[in-house]
Amino acid sequence: MSKANLFYAQSGGVTSVINASACGVIETARQNRDKIGKVYAGLNGIVGALNEDLIDTNKESSRSITSLRSTPAGAFGSCRYKLKSFSENQREYQRLMDVFRAHNIRYFLYNGGGDSQDTVNKVSQLSLDMGFPITCIGIPKTVDNDLPITDNCPGFGSVAKYVAVSIREAGLDVASMCESSTKVFVMEVMGRHAGWIAGAAGLASEQAGDAPHIILFPEVPFNQNKFLRKVRSCVNKYGYCAIVVSEGAQNRDGNFLAESGSKDAFGHAQLGGVAPFIANMIKDELGYKYHWAVADYLQRAARHIASKTDVEQAYAVGKAAVEFALKGKNAVMPIIVRGKSKRYTWKIGEAKLADVANVEKMMPRDYITHDGFHITDKAKDYLTPLIQGEDYPAYKNGIPQYARLKKVLEKKKLSKWKP
Amino acid sequence: MSKANLFYAQSGGVTSVINASACGVIETARQNRDKIGKVYAGLNGIVGALNEDLIDTNKESSRSITSLRSTPAGAFGSCRYKLKSFSENQREYQRLMDVFRAHNIRYFLYNGGGDSQDTVNKVSQLSLDMGFPITCIGIPKTVDNDLPITDNCPGFGSVAKYVAVSIREAGLDVASMCESSTKVFVMEVMGRHAGWIAGAAGLASEQAGDAPHIILFPEVPFNQNKFLRKVRSCVNKYGYCAIVVSEGAQNRDGNFLAESGSKDAFGHAQLGGVAPFIANMIKDELGYKYHWAVADYLQRAARHIASKTDVEQAYAVGKAAVEFALKGKNAVMPIIVRGKSKRYTWKIGEAKLADVANVEKMMPRDYITHDGFHITDKAKDYLTPLIQGEDYPAYKNGIPQYARLKKVLEKKKLSKWKP
Repeated sequence: MSKANLFYAQSGGVTSVINASACGVIETARQNRDKIGKVYAGLNGIVGALNEDLIDTNKESSRSITSLRSTPAGAFGSCRYKLKSFSENQREYQRLMDVFRAHNIRYFLYNGGGDSQDTVNKVSQLSLDMGFPITCIGIPKTVDNDLPITDNCPGFGSVAKYVAVSIREAGLDVASMCESSTKVFVMEVMGRHAGWIAGAAGLASEQAGDAPHIILFPEVPFNQNKFLRKVRSCVNKYGYCAIVVSEGAQNRDGNFLAESGSKDAFGHAQLGGVAPFIANMIKDELGYKYHWAVADYLQRAARHIASKTDVEQAYAVGKAAVEFALKGKNAVMPIIVRGKSKRYTWKIGEAKLADVANVEKMMPRDYITHDGFHITDKAKDYLTPLIQGEDYPAYKNGIPQYARLKKVLEKKKLSKWKP
Repeated sequence: MSKANLFYAQSGGVTSVINASACGVIETARQNRDKIGKVYAGLNGIVGALNEDLIDTNKESSRSITSLRSTPAGAFGSCRYKLKSFSENQREYQRLMDVFRAHNIRYFLYNGGGDSQDTVNKVSQLSLDMGFPITCIGIPKTVDNDLPITDNCPGFGSVAKYVAVSIREAGLDVASMCESSTKVFVMEVMGRHAGWIAGAAGLASEQAGDAPHIILFPEVPFNQNKFLRKVRSCVNKYGYCAIVVSEGAQNRDGNFLAESGSKDAFGHAQLGGVAPFIANMIKDELGYKYHWAVADYLQRAARHIASKTDVEQAYAVGKAAVEFALKGKNAVMPIIVRGKSKRYTWKIGEAKLADVANVEKMMPRDYITHDGFHITDKAKDYLTPLIQGEDYPAYKNGIPQYARLKKVLEKKKLSKWKP
C-alpha cells in the first residue's frame, strides 16, 4: 500500500496568517515524506473535497510554499460552508469518505474557527463508523479570537496590531486638525459578537489623552446618553474624541446598532455600517464635525503589518497539527498555551475538538473598564504580547510580493458531485 | 540686532510625512545657528501666528526633532484657514506683521497645498509694502498630488503606497472567498477632485486578473451601465471584482456620486460615502454579495507603510526651504524635479509661488485607459517610483513610537487677537 496522503483545507473568513499555518503544515509534511505521501489542499476549502478539486501541493516549489508564510488571505481558497449533521445529510459525509478513499487520504487537517472544529470532529467520528478511519486534526484560526481553551487564536494578533496602529495614526491626524476641523473620528472594526478586536485598539492608548478615547464593545449594551456625555467630555478635555466601535455593538435589546437605523429613500437598508451610524448620531446630538472609517477586509488582510508573534504561532499550529497526526492523535487541535511567568512565553498544547466546537469566548468583564468604554490593565497584559514584533513581507516595486501558486488539481477519479 | 527668527507652520489636511518636512526645516535651521535664531512653529498652523501661539522648537530635544521624520500627522497642529485677500481683511495681515515683528521673525515657511502657497505668496508681497520684509518660502504638501510644476507632492507617495498595498491585500482576501461568499469589494479613497490616489491603487495590478479590476476617477464621468457591465464581466472572468473609487467620483452633471443619492428616513444626508453607494448599486442591479471599506484618515496617516522615497523628498523640501531662505530667495517653493533617465532620479528645483498658487493638476487623460476604468503603462511609469522603498518607524510594545513634543509656547508680547 502506498503512503497515506493528507488533506488540508482552509475554512471560513480568512486572515493575514492562515497561509502561515498552511506553510507549517506543508513544510512539516515534506520533512516526513517517509510517512506522508501527497499533501492535497482543498480548492475553496471543504467544498474542494466534495467536488474532488484537490490541489496537489507537491507541484508547488519549496520557495512558493515558504512564501505562504508571508502571504495573507487563503491561498487555496476558503469557503463558508458548514457540513450538516450526519442525520440531515448523510450523502455529504459519504462523498467525503469516497473522495478520501479514492485518493488514499488518511489525514484530514482543517484550518478554521469554531464551526470548522465541529465539522472535523464529526468527520473523525463518522470515519470510524464508516470503516475508513481518518486522523482528524483541527488547526485554530480566527481574527475574532473567540475560540475557547486556546490562550488566543492565530489571526487575531495581526488584526489586533493593525487596529491599534491604525487608531494611533488616525488619532494623531485628528488631534492635529481638531482645533478648526474634525473633532470626532469613528473607526469600525470586526469581531462579530466578541469585542477582542475592538479591545485591542485600546493598546494604542499608552498615555492619558491618547486615542482611542472610547471603545464600544458588543459585550456592553449601548447607552446613548452615557455615550454622548463621554464624547462631549473627551472633546472638552482633549479637543477631540477618537472612537472605536465593534461591528457587533448592540443596544439593550440585543439588536446591532447599525441595523437599528432606518431605510433610505430607495427602501434600502442603511448603506453604511455602524461607524457612520455613530458618527451621524454625534453630529445630530452634539453638532461636532466628524469623520469615520470602515477598514473591513483591509484589517484582516493586512499582512504588511502582521504581528511577528502571530505569524510564528500560526506557523507553529500548522506544524504541530502534522506532528499530532503522525503521533496518532485524533480529534484534537493544537492550541497556544501561555506561560505563567511575567515575561511572555508560549508553547503548543492540545485540546479535544469536542471541547472547542461551537463555543464562543467573549471578552471577560474585568477586561473592560467599569464605565464600559475602555480596556483594563488586565486586558492590556493579555493583549500586548500578541501584537509583539513586526514580520514584514518582501517588497518589489514598492508593493509586497505575495505567493502566486500554480494550484494544479489532482486528476479526478470519481463522478461529479451533485449537491 | 539679534539673529532673525523663523516661523514654520503646517497647513490644511495633514499627511504621514509632513512632519518629515518639519524635521528637515528644523534640523537645517539648527545647522545654521549663526544665521537663524529660533525656529517657531505655529500652534495649529497659521492661526498660531494670529493668536501669537508660537511653539519654541528650540525647547525640543534633537532626538524629538529627529523622530518627527517618522511621525505622521501635524506635530504642531494644522488648520484649514485661508487668509482673505488684503482688501477684504487688512487687519489679519497687519496682525501677522505685528506678531512677526514682535518676535523678530524674518523667515516664514509655510507647509501646505495650493491655497497655502497663495497665502504665503500674498504675505511676501504685503510684507514689502508694509515695510517689514519677510522671506517667504512655500513647502509643498498634499496627499492629493494636485500641485502644478512639481513632479509630485510630498505626502502623495505614502498614501499611494498605502492604497496599492491595501487593495492588493483585500483583493487576495476576496479572491480566496469569492466562490461561496463576497464577489464585489469596493474601497473608497481620498484625492478630492484629482484621481491620483485612486490611480495609484492601480499599481497593485501587476498581472492580468490582479486587483483592482476597476478604478473610478473624478476625471471620468460615471456611466452606470458601462460600469455595471464591467463589474459583471470581471466577476465572470475572475470570480470577483475589486473596485477602487475616488471620493471625488462624479456623474455627468459634475455632482459627487455619494451626494446624488437621497436622504434617509430621518432626513439625514446619506450616511455612507461613495463606497457603500457603489456597493449598494451593484447589489441592487446585479445581486452580488459585497463588502466595502472607507479608509478615510487611516490612509493619509499611515506612516507605518510610508514610501521611503516620499519620506526622503518630504525631508528634502523642508531642508531646501531653509537653504532657499538663507540664499535670499523669496516667494518660491522647492519642488521635486524628475530626471530624464529611465532609472528614476530626482532633485530639488524651484518654482515661483505665483505660478503654483490655486492651480489644480488633474490626472492626464493618457494616464487613464481608454475605457476609463484603469491606469495606463504611462501612469505606472510615473507612479511606480513614488512608492519605492519602505521606511518603517520604530516600535515598542508592538506599536509605532511617534514623537511626543513638549510644545512650549513663547511668551506673548502682544494683546490678545480678536478675529
